[in-house]
Amino acid sequence: MSTGGSGEARMSGEDALIARLFEPIARHPGALGLKDDAALLAVPPGHELVLTKDALVAGVHFFADDAPGSVARKALRVNLSDLAAKGARPLGILLAIAIPADMSSAALEAFATGLGEDASDYGAPLLGGDTVRTDGPLTISITAVGAVPTGSMVKRASAPAGQAIVVTGTIGDAALGLALRLAPDRPGFKALAPDERAFLADRYLHPRPRLALAGALRRCASAAMDVSDGLVGDLAKMLAASGVGGEIEAARVPLSVAARAAIAAEPELMVTALTGGDDYEILAVMADEQLDTFAATATASGIGTAVIGRTFAGEGLMVRDALGAPLPVGQGSFSHF
Amino acid sequence: MSTGGSGEARMSGEDALIARLFEPIARHPGALGLKDDAALLAVPPGHELVLTKDALVAGVHFFADDAPGSVARKALRVNLSDLAAKGARPLGILLAIAIPADMSSAALEAFATGLGEDASDYGAPLLGGDTVRTDGPLTISITAVGAVPTGSMVKRASAPAGQAIVVTGTIGDAALGLALRLAPDRPGFKALAPDERAFLADRYLHPRPRLALAGALRRCASAAMDVSDGLVGDLAKMLAASGVGGEIEAARVPLSVAARAAIAAEPELMVTALTGGDDYEILAVMADEQLDTFAATATASGIGTAVIGRTFAGEGLMVRDALGAPLPVGQGSFSHF
Repeated sequence: MSTGGSGEARMSGEDALIARLFEPIARHPGALGLKDDAALLAVPPGHELVLTKDALVAGVHFFADDAPGSVARKALRVNLSDLAAKGARPLGILLAIAIPADMSSAALEAFATGLGEDASDYGAPLLGGDTVRTDGPLTISITAVGAVPTGSMVKRASAPAGQAIVVTGTIGDAALGLALRLAPDRPGFKALAPDERAFLADRYLHPRPRLALAGALRRCASAAMDVSDGLVGDLAKMLAASGVGGEIEAARVPLSVAARAAIAAEPELMVTALTGGDDYEILAVMADEQLDTFAATATASGIGTAVIGRTFAGEGLMVRDALGAPLPVGQGSFSHF
Repeated sequence: MSTGGSGEARMSGEDALIARLFEPIARHPGALGLKDDAALLAVPPGHELVLTKDALVAGVHFFADDAPGSVARKALRVNLSDLAAKGARPLGILLAIAIPADMSSAALEAFATGLGEDASDYGAPLLGGDTVRTDGPLTISITAVGAVPTGSMVKRASAPAGQAIVVTGTIGDAALGLALRLAPDRPGFKALAPDERAFLADRYLHPRPRLALAGALRRCASAAMDVSDGLVGDLAKMLAASGVGGEIEAARVPLSVAARAAIAAEPELMVTALTGGDDYEILAVMADEQLDTFAATATASGIGTAVIGRTFAGEGLMVRDALGAPLPVGQGSFSHF
């Protein structure tokens, strides 16, 4: 972790902090013990780099009172989810963390522990980064470096007409988990059993990057992205970028038992599930003849897949209800700008 | 620029902002128009990656009223300085920017313009990143991706005993520029002509990454780092990491005309120059027989070099004054932790 400039957290204090917390999780030789200006990384022959960088701010992307270990895991996983969607495998990560003055050593340690466990579990070693102080909220930026065999990155803007629209896992759990946290007394959530509430809350806190599907996506998908800003909005983006139209049936969107129970008790939560963010599932478009192979690979990794619609020559996204009528889902996503 | 998760700045508003400000400076084909989840980058054959990531926070690493274009340039240049010190050439950058609600569109545009000009000038195209909102100060993290011929990265911990300690450019200007900004009425600064004050102020705002020396460092240097946290402190770190001792003569540390004038009027500013941060010059250790080649290459690029001391078998760093007496410079750097 290099330190740069005036007012930087540095020298003995920062060095000690870094050494204690982050060096143990930076065992990759290219991390150089976090003691150099930069990290060194060999790229496997015949491979290209896939690079992504997401930032998370306390009070915006997570709750200030979320467990620091969960925050670290989420910050890492949202980046790994981008790599998975592109068919890439992780090579390593860089972390920048801006630490508020009131963040305790214990909280920092929990953050580092969570990050270290995930970095190990997902094969994404910490290579370097920067730790600085801030007068503002805890702010985390992770850069994930991945690799794909040259020419095989799965793009977003390459969805052809006449192919199947596929999603992995279940959709809406995280958005419902967030809604539950904000308003636990809504009828949809009061109808849930405690373990169902815990499941939704966990899905908001802990995305599950679908790295196990990276190879299958490279082989089977014409286009893919991860669902981070809501299924409907993200699919609309992918279709627009690809210059095709699409149609999905809401009834075919895979829902968890908990999500189904919440929606049964409060039907308007269906719109939350379809348009809310933080799913971190894969949304892919693929030819019909690839569906069985993709589903079989996913199943072997314990990941469900569902065909939810088709692309067509044209433009726009139509979401239909079980009777075939257009379902009003607003603009499908939400903007702070 | 991918967008990830609930509360993210996203969809139409963010997309429009990104498109207007950042897409024009992301012309590298691997940036995919900032419209995919990740960027794609080919690494030149026979090369390894050099990766660095520095974060800057308003009120900590720069003044909240610094011109946004200057802030962008500094954020980029401190990262490129790390690449230069490692002998790497830039391949591209990723940017994460957390934008306070009160940052105007004009300020954002100035930020993007400064970043774009520098990215172009230094051959470090914007590949991707993330724009998010924050309730706190403007926070910027840049990841710089560079490349070196395999096996040739110049490390920090590889300084042998019995070699020359070399610095580029002039030392202390940025630290004096910061001191000038904080206390313009100090005798050392009142003694300066207006253009000398402007020079120091500019050196604080606009580091000059020594990318032109990357090749010469690979060929000539045994070890190198960029001077970001103060010459004395950074040299002490390099020596300790390398397991050798060193001695420098303060009188041989290259000073600008403005720095010399300020120190002449207020001698204690010499300690500021030797221990203050933000130089972003190169500190290198090299064999005596490499000195001429290195100096000639630097001169050809308009960059001065100076031998300021030697390494020796042992430990610690001794700073001597012109008479050979040890100069008290404290711990050589400053920590917020």
